[in-house]
Amino acid sequence: MKGKKGIIFGALDERSIAWKTAERCYEEGAQIVLTNAPVAMRMGEINKLAEKTNAPVIPCDVTSNQDMEHLIVKSKEHFGGSFDFILHSVGMSLNMRKGKSYLDLDYGFNQKTLDISATSLHRLLATSLKHDALNEWGSVVALTYIAAQRVFPDYSEMADAKALLESIARSFGYHYALKKKVRINTISQSPTRTTAGSGVKGFDGFISYAEKMSPLGNASADDCANYTITLFSDLTRFVTMQNLYHDGGFSMTGVTNSVIEQMEK
Amino acid sequence: MKGKKGIIFGALDERSIAWKTAERCYEEGAQIVLTNAPVAMRMGEINKLAEKTNAPVIPCDVTSNQDMEHLIVKSKEHFGGSFDFILHSVGMSLNMRKGKSYLDLDYGFNQKTLDISATSLHRLLATSLKHDALNEWGSVVALTYIAAQRVFPDYSEMADAKALLESIARSFGYHYALKKKVRINTISQSPTRTTAGSGVKGFDGFISYAEKMSPLGNASADDCANYTITLFSDLTRFVTMQNLYHDGGFSMTGVTNSVIEQMEK
Amino acid sequence: MKGKKGIIFGALDERSIAWKTAERCYEEGAQIVLTNAPVAMRMGEINKLAEKTNAPVIPCDVTSNQDMEHLIVKSKEHFGGSFDFILHSVGMSLNMRKGKSYLDLDYGFNQKTLDISATSLHRLLATSLKHDALNEWGSVVALTYIAAQRVFPDYSEMADAKALLESIARSFGYHYALKKKVRINTISQSPTRTTAGSGVKGFDGFISYAEKMSPLGNASADDCANYTITLFSDLTRFVTMQNLYHDGGFSMTGVTNSVIEQMEK
Amino acid sequence: MKGKKGIIFGALDERSIAWKTAERCYEEGAQIVLTNAPVAMRMGEINKLAEKTNAPVIPCDVTSNQDMEHLIVKSKEHFGGSFDFILHSVGMSLNMRKGKSYLDLDYGFNQKTLDISATSLHRLLATSLKHDALNEWGSVVALTYIAAQRVFPDYSEMADAKALLESIARSFGYHYALKKKVRINTISQSPTRTTAGSGVKGFDGFISYAEKMSPLGNASADDCANYTITLFSDLTRFVTMQNLYHDGGFSMTGVTNSVIEQMEK
Repeated sequence: MKGKKGIIFGALDERSIAWKTAERCYEEGAQIVLTNAPVAMRMGEINKLAEKTNAPVIPCDVTSNQDMEHLIVKSKEHFGGSFDFILHSVGMSLNMRKGKSYLDLDYGFNQKTLDISATSLHRLLATSLKHDALNEWGSVVALTYIAAQRVFPDYSEMADAKALLESIARSFGYHYALKKKVRINTISQSPTRTTAGSGVKGFDGFISYAEKMSPLGNASADDCANYTITLFSDLTRFVTMQNLYHDGGFSMTGVTNSVIEQMEK
Repeated sequence: MKGKKGIIFGALDERSIAWKTAERCYEEGAQIVLTNAPVAMRMGEINKLAEKTNAPVIPCDVTSNQDMEHLIVKSKEHFGGSFDFILHSVGMSLNMRKGKSYLDLDYGFNQKTLDISATSLHRLLATSLKHDALNEWGSVVALTYIAAQRVFPDYSEMADAKALLESIARSFGYHYALKKKVRINTISQSPTRTTAGSGVKGFDGFISYAEKMSPLGNASADDCANYTITLFSDLTRFVTMQNLYHDGGFSMTGVTNSVIEQMEK
Repeated sequence: MKGKKGIIFGALDERSIAWKTAERCYEEGAQIVLTNAPVAMRMGEINKLAEKTNAPVIPCDVTSNQDMEHLIVKSKEHFGGSFDFILHSVGMSLNMRKGKSYLDLDYGFNQKTLDISATSLHRLLATSLKHDALNEWGSVVALTYIAAQRVFPDYSEMADAKALLESIARSFGYHYALKKKVRINTISQSPTRTTAGSGVKGFDGFISYAEKMSPLGNASADDCANYTITLFSDLTRFVTMQNLYHDGGFSMTGVTNSVIEQMEK
Repeated sequence: MKGKKGIIFGALDERSIAWKTAERCYEEGAQIVLTNAPVAMRMGEINKLAEKTNAPVIPCDVTSNQDMEHLIVKSKEHFGGSFDFILHSVGMSLNMRKGKSYLDLDYGFNQKTLDISATSLHRLLATSLKHDALNEWGSVVALTYIAAQRVFPDYSEMADAKALLESIARSFGYHYALKKKVRINTISQSPTRTTAGSGVKGFDGFISYAEKMSPLGNASADDCANYTITLFSDLTRFVTMQNLYHDGGFSMTGVTNSVIEQMEK
């Protein structure tokens, strides 16, 4: 990572995966720019991280073309040219926040959820391409969740948003690879006790189920930061358009003896 | 299918998969309601089909909650109660229609594309559930395409829309199964020379590639209608939340000798 | 199915999926040949079924080229020519039977398990092709289990055998489609209380877990017979090389509220 | 990798992925043991590599329990205790070598192919576990190919062998994770011009197809060595039981414009 430069989205507070990733990038010798939604910045503690990692903070509402443009242009100015990596750790469900169930979605909220959580990746990549902001063999990682493949009922409309996000990563990954050899992958992470994750209803029962269903246990935010580092590095240049499970084996486990025992109670 | 009742979306003209499916349902003794977008009804020949299959036509803009409500309520009235099946064959890309490339999407158009092509399924299912419009063991089929799993560059934003559609089918499929034993599946069909399909850029080169890559050749609209019939029948009651490839083997074929030979030219 | 002819493997007793499928084929007007391993025939009650379905029984050790040859040749004689469908419902784990755990496999037993449970499908198809025994658009179905995709620890080496079986279905499916338009699919069925299924250790805890994890509940042997009928019919001609989940939605369900509740006890 | 120790299977000559991986491990400060089949050792140049990487060579016929036992015991002796990683790069098709087509397999040869190419991984892992040869958080990588998921007809029975191999990696991965936190993954690599790879019929036409179908182009043996290093490192501790595509995006690409153009010729 020495000498590499990149943008980290979504570092709300020190439990965030993005926060940990920013710290790890910095430790490994990378330069970073931090960004988050203006409202999240007010709630969170991003300035503490900015100080620690010697990084500017550039606010960005990911649903605004103008904000995205501003972020990319300012980042290029800060780095003195194009850069190498981006972490997209962005997601929010308005229907969940407003207490609307999946069977009774408000479609205006839903459109906003998709825009924030998925289309934002397209906007980010299209803006980066337009400004030729990523160096050859650059690497983009977006965080996702296995609800995009299988139903976890409490995840509600976020499941659909993540499916859309993963599709955008593949679709744009094709084009960015051809044009600039940039690779785009998603990491499908264990449920993680971040401030965002904890908001999901039934999260406690669920996280203990995931722990019991993962032969290695749930992966932590720190582990996820480590894994992300490998995808930003030059050692993974030919991995692109993939959805990569970082979940202690959860995705490939149909059942464990520990869950069966619980069922027999 | 004898005695079964259902709604068929998207019968534009006699090349449409929906058209063929409506005919097959009728032949097998089912009663149907036809629906399509007002604008598509003006362009197409749905009234010919309506006459042939003795079916009312109820227009429905799938992006309108009100229209959807009207469709479901009127269908129940027509059938004298709840019904058994729905075919969702709906999709449209505004960016493609307006000549905007995937790298330069208009996000307003994109939002509309997702609403028409994917969210419409949610709206349809939520409205059906609210009016308790589907009988137990009812069956919903939505048509999709393998671009939701792998990149076909000319398919542009429709790939992302189909990924979203398939996720909605899974997510809602979970809930509808629990509540009413209704099953929801998507059929991932070979590229088909329908009036809609033909609009895709590079369609001819692509359809001949698909033909060469499918050990049984491409599946036709007639074949798709047949397959859909099996999913509406009581013989497939425990198939739900699946994406089912109806593609002559395309999806499981990495390469064929016929393609390799072409590469060596 | 009227007028169709085919071979059914593996009807041990009336709880068997193969037994139910034979009955359903017969009801729908098909002619069948029954076969099973000599040892299974002694344990089971296949003659009762033979009488009921007016079918000859031709024993066949599926690990013997000669037996397979004999079965195919005799079936052609019986039918007065080539035929239309085959159900492969064959599987046996020697290591499980002998009480050897997955961590301590006897490789001689394992080789035999793979031969009986997976390579037998290749032998069957190669022999059929050699004798041109299947009509154009013929259909072969093999029964499998989701342990081929995700780990169910008590399923032991059968998981690997099923993965091999599914690969053979795809590989041979490609060739048979090109040569004779024959299609080959696997059905991945819910855990089923057959005499064979019940032998698996921890089966009871497991089947109740599967029930709780399937939005429609587990699919029964009767349902599986129905589904198999659709794959033998002419309505599914362009479905080939697929692994088809017939499982009440289990495969696409990450967790259910009913499992979460159990975890919280 | 500093201070890490491990075994590398399958370094035939300097084009081998295993050869490159051994070199990279050594460069990064790891200690290694080299192994290969006695016959491959006679054909290849493993001693050159042994000298270069300061590694002992311990011959091992992977179909022999005794040889495997000997390898593990001797490696532990050499390292002065348990070790951290293993690369399984082993595969051979007897039917292909003997010119038998997939439709006419010799089942004796086939059994041998499966034993060498797939069961060998089980034997290796079971022997390692029995001797407690791998440290906690140790990492095992086996090389595979996408023919395990989709048909590449010239790959013949090796497709089935790779499907079996990947299933074994998952199945054993579950148990080894629970017992010792060891993780097991497969890398599904681009077709590579190794001495082994070149033996496959139609390899040239195929490799150029793969190049055209991969947005980043085919991944080289050097790139694969780099990627393997990341999986041996502590940065990927929660990745297990996965099949990881290292293929320039081939697996997620349905078609490219460059292939379509070729089809239109």
